Amino acid sequence: MRISFPPAAPDSYPWEGQLRWSKSERKVARKAFDRALNQELQEVIQQAKQMAAAIKQPSDLWELEHHLTQRRKEIDHKYEYRASRLGSVFGTLLHEGRLAEEDLRGLREDKLKAIRSHAEFLRTRDEPI
Amino acid sequence: MRISFPPAAPDSYPWEGQLRWSKSERKVARKAFDRALNQELQEVIQQAKQMAAAIKQPSDLWELEHHLTQRRKEIDHKYEYRASRLGSVFGTLLHEGRLAEEDLRGLREDKLKAIRSHAEFLRTRDEPI
Repeated sequence: MRISFPPAAPDSYPWEGQLRWSKSERKVARKAFDRALNQELQEVIQQAKQMAAAIKQPSDLWELEHHLTQRRKEIDHKYEYRASRLGSVFGTLLHEGRLAEEDLRGLREDKLKAIRSHAEFLRTRDEPI
Repeated sequence: MRISFPPAAPDSYPWEGQLRWSKSERKVARKAFDRALNQELQEVIQQAKQMAAAIKQPSDLWELEHHLTQRRKEIDHKYEYRASRLGSVFGTLLHEGRLAEEDLRGLREDKLKAIRSHAEFLRTRDEPI
């Protein structure tokens, strides 16, 4: 989901597609991205090992297959490394607790604002009504 | 794949869709079918457990997923319990060594002939040229 904020409004931040990432920011971003992705993949690996070890009947087997397919699709969708998407990618990872703000140290305020704003959007969206 | 043999030819057997399975034959068929299917599923389960235990990196994980999807599709395709398909289903299982002729004891000669003929077709098809 992409939310655009009108650049003219006060306290707005640029639409994430318009953010310019410097070379050093890209380095920070790549490192944080890879760390979160590797950590999530390790979780899926550990979970797959546990599920496989616990298989007793064919339905458990197909449940594992379905689970892996779902996780692969989620991860493919979540970790899209394109500058125009990084704001919401990191916002999601922040929201899920997969990244902390300190992992993003070195990004400029325009990026942090976009990231925090997306995380905040997800937080309010997930709140019980 | 379905092969039809003209019923008029000498030494022919009826097109498998035309075979009539008696109640006792259906019982034999069901038992042989279930035994082969369960055995194949157990093999997939054991293999999945081994593959999962050996996962070291994400590519191994997705290989497991792909393997399970492939096996599920193969098994779905191979084990189709319909009277009109049982000749070739058992022919395949015979060819693969998943069933022996003694597992089919109780079937009448018209069925056995259809089954053997399909197994023989697969054997010659798989021969190196």
